[in-house]
Amino acid sequence: MSRKHILLNAFDMNCVGHIHHGLWTHPRDRSTDYNTLGYWTRLATTLERGLFDGLFIADVLGVYDVYQGKADVAARAAVQLPVNDPMLLVSAMAAVTRHLGFGVTVNLSHEAPYLLARRFSTLDHLTGGRVGWNIVTGYLESAARAMGLSGQLPHDERYDRADEFMDVLYKLWEGSWEEGAARRDKAGRVFADPSQVHKVIHHGKYFDVEGIHLAEPSVQRTPVLYQAGSSGRGQRFAARHAESVFVAGVNKADVARSVRSLRGELVKAGRRADDVKVFMVAAVIVAPTGPGARALEAEYRDFASREAGLAHFAAGVGVDFGKVGLDDPIDYTMGNAIESHARAAQEHGWTRRKLLELFALGSRYPAIVGDAVEVADQLQSWVAETGIDGFNLARTVTPECHEAFVDLVVPELQRRGVYKTAYTEGSLRHKLHGEGDRLPQRHAAQVFRRSQG
Amino acid sequence: MSRKHILLNAFDMNCVGHIHHGLWTHPRDRSTDYNTLGYWTRLATTLERGLFDGLFIADVLGVYDVYQGKADVAARAAVQLPVNDPMLLVSAMAAVTRHLGFGVTVNLSHEAPYLLARRFSTLDHLTGGRVGWNIVTGYLESAARAMGLSGQLPHDERYDRADEFMDVLYKLWEGSWEEGAARRDKAGRVFADPSQVHKVIHHGKYFDVEGIHLAEPSVQRTPVLYQAGSSGRGQRFAARHAESVFVAGVNKADVARSVRSLRGELVKAGRRADDVKVFMVAAVIVAPTGPGARALEAEYRDFASREAGLAHFAAGVGVDFGKVGLDDPIDYTMGNAIESHARAAQEHGWTRRKLLELFALGSRYPAIVGDAVEVADQLQSWVAETGIDGFNLARTVTPECHEAFVDLVVPELQRRGVYKTAYTEGSLRHKLHGEGDRLPQRHAAQVFRRSQG
Repeated sequence: MSRKHILLNAFDMNCVGHIHHGLWTHPRDRSTDYNTLGYWTRLATTLERGLFDGLFIADVLGVYDVYQGKADVAARAAVQLPVNDPMLLVSAMAAVTRHLGFGVTVNLSHEAPYLLARRFSTLDHLTGGRVGWNIVTGYLESAARAMGLSGQLPHDERYDRADEFMDVLYKLWEGSWEEGAARRDKAGRVFADPSQVHKVIHHGKYFDVEGIHLAEPSVQRTPVLYQAGSSGRGQRFAARHAESVFVAGVNKADVARSVRSLRGELVKAGRRADDVKVFMVAAVIVAPTGPGARALEAEYRDFASREAGLAHFAAGVGVDFGKVGLDDPIDYTMGNAIESHARAAQEHGWTRRKLLELFALGSRYPAIVGDAVEVADQLQSWVAETGIDGFNLARTVTPECHEAFVDLVVPELQRRGVYKTAYTEGSLRHKLHGEGDRLPQRHAAQVFRRSQG
Repeated sequence: MSRKHILLNAFDMNCVGHIHHGLWTHPRDRSTDYNTLGYWTRLATTLERGLFDGLFIADVLGVYDVYQGKADVAARAAVQLPVNDPMLLVSAMAAVTRHLGFGVTVNLSHEAPYLLARRFSTLDHLTGGRVGWNIVTGYLESAARAMGLSGQLPHDERYDRADEFMDVLYKLWEGSWEEGAARRDKAGRVFADPSQVHKVIHHGKYFDVEGIHLAEPSVQRTPVLYQAGSSGRGQRFAARHAESVFVAGVNKADVARSVRSLRGELVKAGRRADDVKVFMVAAVIVAPTGPGARALEAEYRDFASREAGLAHFAAGVGVDFGKVGLDDPIDYTMGNAIESHARAAQEHGWTRRKLLELFALGSRYPAIVGDAVEVADQLQSWVAETGIDGFNLARTVTPECHEAFVDLVVPELQRRGVYKTAYTEGSLRHKLHGEGDRLPQRHAAQVFRRSQG
């Protein structure tokens, strides 16, 4: 079994119901405090105590209105509705931590590159180089309508546009201010040397930008790039840009295949197979004893909402389960749905009945349940058998799920030598990849850099 | 002299050189730490100690490239370049304060209403109802080019578009979720009542939006609305929307005229003359003794940059002073410049020589200099003779300027009974206007509210 350190992100969202739907109704769950700062600073402090690599904050634009053709279940069960902006949480959490990274999801399909570039640069400054960006292109028609569009771009074209968007951002982040341009020289009365600050000129198919990047270079310049695309086009996008990728899988064979495919794409793109860290979504329910953990799982199940899980999944696969009999065969579309979800559903022949069984905890993602030894065994076996680097740990009942993990599982992993016992100094990128604060020269951003003056 | 309490905002920006250019070179100035969280949390703590009503954070998109036809002076002297995003500062400061308000500038000309509405709702949630929005429409051609446009909309049309933008935001903030729609009922397993959550449908000249507002109602719903428009069209916009307005003036007569005109527009718009709080930009240099304060001013002047002040002002009035002789008469344009600046410059016949004199502290705004008694006398006399409600205090050498004001001037104002001795409980809006957390029924937003279910 590998002695490589397992990487850990907490997987959360600025909302009530994120993955394990219904659990907000558990008496000890505090996710309805998502709109208060104390909720987030407490979470960040707990995660840093557990030496977590990062807090990954999901986001979605639009609402889940595929199930029953309306958003009623989403509203009633708080299925990622309401959902507040994720970026605005970061500075408060950064102020109470020193090492924890923050991976923030932003859908680039509705953002202006010049403004989004500045927002990420600002966070990278304020966190001292601890920010990442989970790049998504969106998949909900309701988001397009809210943005005044008649509909989304087709799936693959969304990625074409995203590729150009990234080029613009690299120009702004990597090419506008030369290294050392910001002199900050009080005695010489020179803040920046104008000859080293350049206007970006970009005229492309989707974007036209002419301007100096408004932010001086931050620790990482480009935030650590996360991506979750699992379609063929999505994997090619990840192979070009991503430094961390999230995968979700039904079983180890599926995940192993997906990881192998991604690493193959990386090498084709001129990068190293391990240039991307792969995180798998999972939930852990741990207690001091195995029976205690299983009792806790049973208790949680009493508060979960299978229907809410189905309403969420319906949007992901583009199927209105409200119109489908319990045992009807289902033709999962591949349209604007999340392709990996639709593919898994198709391959496994999931009927509505089967899905409702899977959603016993409000989500189809695997729950790893047991005492610390059992949980550590399972985490290690997922890593060994699939080639992933670590986990995106979804919350169940919060904050107790995070506190139990930190108190019970982290020490067990440390005893086994598969988890760090202290943070490495340096930026989030350096902590994850060990090659310094900036993107390596073999990354696509390199061509947009200026030779250093 | 009025016993009305004077209102106070600190006036700052997420950048090095904001108003008083060149002072970043002073050995004690810490504004080059603008990109660190400690700089902002310290500022917020100081302001709350001084019972400031708010921290007003300016912003600008684009660069000051009118002077000499390029941004070289702006870059060299850090004239609002670099400038980081202001919204992302708020949560860290909110976490270390309980009452301080945050007025954040966002240029709506380049934002999507559906996304901006959520960002402000998020901040209003996280601050517990302490957020305001300074609505600007921009004036720099360099911003338009950075956004991929061939140029800005004409001045008055920018406000027409802004009016429609505001209507969309009121629909989202005030009309999408009924009061009480968010039940948060764990026992009943109902987060929100779907029958009380409504899709906004807006199809206008500039915007099309169809969607449920992603955020549940926050304390204030609509953030406190600030505005600084001083043109005729700008004042009509303010009369319809604003709850606080910023003015800048050369002398008391100018300011009094401007305040009278604004209050007249308010009444014409069906609101009360005092429905808008008027803040005037000023800088205070205070010391334990009058001679000490004047010595401090002289010391500061040695570090100020008159040329940087001129480069900033050049963009505001649309005149390239790099091409103008010291005593040449100047034809100030009214094009995309800031009309009040251009008008003042025209009326006072400011030549380049006169401006360089005015910019002795790096800015043309009045500096109020003296011991606490002298400063309090002057602040009170501005209020009494112009009808303003308070001040936007620009920083000079930071943080000492804020600390000196809080330690010396605040107690003097309190002794005179013209400044609060404790915060009122409640939201920023309630603190400023005393009529509760929400916009009053006589505000334009009222028509976008739903009858309460």
